[in-house]
Amino acid sequence: MNAVIIAVGSEMLTPTRVDTNSLFLTEKLNLLGVEVVQKMVVGDQKKHLEAAIRNGGELAQLIILTGGLGPTEDDLTREAVSAATGRALTYDRSLAEALEARFAAMGRKMAEINRKQAYVLQGAEVMQNPHGTAPGQWLRLPDQQILVLLPGPPGEMKPMAEAEFFPRLERILPPLALSTLTFRLTGMGESDLDQLIAPVYKQYENPVTTILAKAGDLTVHLRAQAKTKQEAEARTAELGGKIEALLGQRIYSRDGSPLEAVVIEKLVARGETLAVAESLTAGMLGARLGGVAGASKAFLGGIIAYRGLQKEMLLGVAGKAIAEHTEVSEEIARQMAVGARQRTGADWALSLTGYAGPEGGTEANPVGTVFIGLAGPAGPVRVSRFRYPAGDRDRVRSFAVHSALNLLRLALLKGES
Amino acid sequence: MNAVIIAVGSEMLTPTRVDTNSLFLTEKLNLLGVEVVQKMVVGDQKKHLEAAIRNGGELAQLIILTGGLGPTEDDLTREAVSAATGRALTYDRSLAEALEARFAAMGRKMAEINRKQAYVLQGAEVMQNPHGTAPGQWLRLPDQQILVLLPGPPGEMKPMAEAEFFPRLERILPPLALSTLTFRLTGMGESDLDQLIAPVYKQYENPVTTILAKAGDLTVHLRAQAKTKQEAEARTAELGGKIEALLGQRIYSRDGSPLEAVVIEKLVARGETLAVAESLTAGMLGARLGGVAGASKAFLGGIIAYRGLQKEMLLGVAGKAIAEHTEVSEEIARQMAVGARQRTGADWALSLTGYAGPEGGTEANPVGTVFIGLAGPAGPVRVSRFRYPAGDRDRVRSFAVHSALNLLRLALLKGES
Repeated sequence: MNAVIIAVGSEMLTPTRVDTNSLFLTEKLNLLGVEVVQKMVVGDQKKHLEAAIRNGGELAQLIILTGGLGPTEDDLTREAVSAATGRALTYDRSLAEALEARFAAMGRKMAEINRKQAYVLQGAEVMQNPHGTAPGQWLRLPDQQILVLLPGPPGEMKPMAEAEFFPRLERILPPLALSTLTFRLTGMGESDLDQLIAPVYKQYENPVTTILAKAGDLTVHLRAQAKTKQEAEARTAELGGKIEALLGQRIYSRDGSPLEAVVIEKLVARGETLAVAESLTAGMLGARLGGVAGASKAFLGGIIAYRGLQKEMLLGVAGKAIAEHTEVSEEIARQMAVGARQRTGADWALSLTGYAGPEGGTEANPVGTVFIGLAGPAGPVRVSRFRYPAGDRDRVRSFAVHSALNLLRLALLKGES
Repeated sequence: MNAVIIAVGSEMLTPTRVDTNSLFLTEKLNLLGVEVVQKMVVGDQKKHLEAAIRNGGELAQLIILTGGLGPTEDDLTREAVSAATGRALTYDRSLAEALEARFAAMGRKMAEINRKQAYVLQGAEVMQNPHGTAPGQWLRLPDQQILVLLPGPPGEMKPMAEAEFFPRLERILPPLALSTLTFRLTGMGESDLDQLIAPVYKQYENPVTTILAKAGDLTVHLRAQAKTKQEAEARTAELGGKIEALLGQRIYSRDGSPLEAVVIEKLVARGETLAVAESLTAGMLGARLGGVAGASKAFLGGIIAYRGLQKEMLLGVAGKAIAEHTEVSEEIARQMAVGARQRTGADWALSLTGYAGPEGGTEANPVGTVFIGLAGPAGPVRVSRFRYPAGDRDRVRSFAVHSALNLLRLALLKGES
């Protein structure tokens, strides 16, 4: 089954408010095997809302509306659904009495406008709202299309969905098993990744494959449906196996874990520790490592040497080397990594020096160039040179942090020391 | 003018991703007097996207699409707009060459699929993308309807919108005088702020006042419209003056600058420098300071002392003091700040030690407790104790970084040394 979610309310068309109800609904719908094919945010105008309901009806069997069930003149969801479906709104006396009783229980008299909330679409089932005055509605049309009206405030919508909407939906859905598989990987561009695996995943409509990219970090997500759990798992395993064979060691996690958590986990398993020496990233790598709960089992800390003199004072980099090679160079990255290892007592150290921009850079090493040093328990320091697209300071820094973590991951994977 | 925003990408129909591009776009559109009447999120299916463009066209004169301009088979925005408008896609050789040059500059060969990004709708103007490979397009139809194609990644979409989309739009819109005023402030909660200033701003329908809150950082935004610039400015000045009188020194910027930029600017003006000593934040404060372009004029660097032993090794904190007071204590924050100043040669130092959670904490200092030390050129180190809501590790750390920056700002404001 496909679904369309329509969030109703002009306030969600301002620069500061976003519809989050749909995220909650989507999570549960997906688990029931229902795919959300479109989301809309519509203002408090009956004509627009009516059109949205009609348009949604052409895409999906299930139309979910959140919001617009209040008592004021702006609350037009009931009227719009009535207009779009041709179902009359009828006054439900017992619902009105329940509303009155609700106000009375709070020692208040119900305002006349609240009577509006007692109108029900012909043929609809009322869904109780223990947390507010707006009752929900469940309307199943003869053509099997389903319209669901839920209140807008999450504190009212969520309990109603759990208690009244999802159970109704479950009863009419064919039993369906789902299986998902997630690969996270790095070390290649989004288009290179797609070029590599598209010939494989395009052969499958089920599982559905999605690719996400963010600052050098890639996620491949597979989701399969089937009649039995076993069959669904076999489907993701089959395609997943083929993708895995193509990507190999570029995959750093299969459970959604971020790269820094994978690195920490590997270090903890080996009983080894890590320190950082950061120039252009100024603490970004440390902050990411420190964001992993329990990171202190492997992450010791390090040095932020933003200026040249601090590279000398805090890391023991030779002033002469800076004068000779400049701060952004293979040699300085090497000395920074060595210094970080020595001064913290860590087994491993990662160092970063580069030009984030907008200023700085040389002809040989323009803005976007970053040298990353990796010092380990044995062997010489390895320095890698990266060149990221210039233009966005924070993007260069994020890319560099990601590359650094991946260099260490690959070294640990090889069992290097 | 009315606008519809269509975010393209199946990943935004999952339970974890939300379209935020539309918030950025809406803010600027509102400033230009354009009202957003509907937002849609559409998956990577040409038929659905084509229908969404047609439906949007019935509601608004301006249709903005974000996303789906990449090189993969999932990227169908160009094709869908072509189908919905009847405008052919033609291969733009010079655009293809520019793309190839972009890859060459990074030392890579362009993948064949990237050629897809060189197709332009007949009659459209190309909008340059300095931050990615997806060019944007601006298409004005004879019936005055406008279709705008922007890339999905915010880091590409925002600069393109600023440089190429908004200026084009401004040229064709009737002149409307607007005035905005932004106060950024910290040191109080969102509801306390609202309680304080609502009695004043509720008296005005024009300017419109909005309040935004994020991890201890608050923004009050006023927007006035009028026939003349002078009149609009008088409106924001009148309400702005009243709000400013209520908030005083809590306001840290009036031009939208973030707190770290304000601190760097004040330090540069005084010719003074800053270092950091971070435990729970593990580099987050340094990374924020280093994110300010030109930060190196005042920010030297510092030490990430994640574990106790590294506080001794890198900052000279006394092991005895750790044993006596524990790592999360006023005394250790004090010694960390002193150590950071001494070892870096900075005029000022900020230190942070605390419990981010989920584990750790004591009865006296539960999870969420952070000690922040501030050492300056003269006078004793001042240590402040903060208690943030526990539960979200990154939130505690973000709050702490924000508090630290504000402590230094207030000290610099008082002209302290």
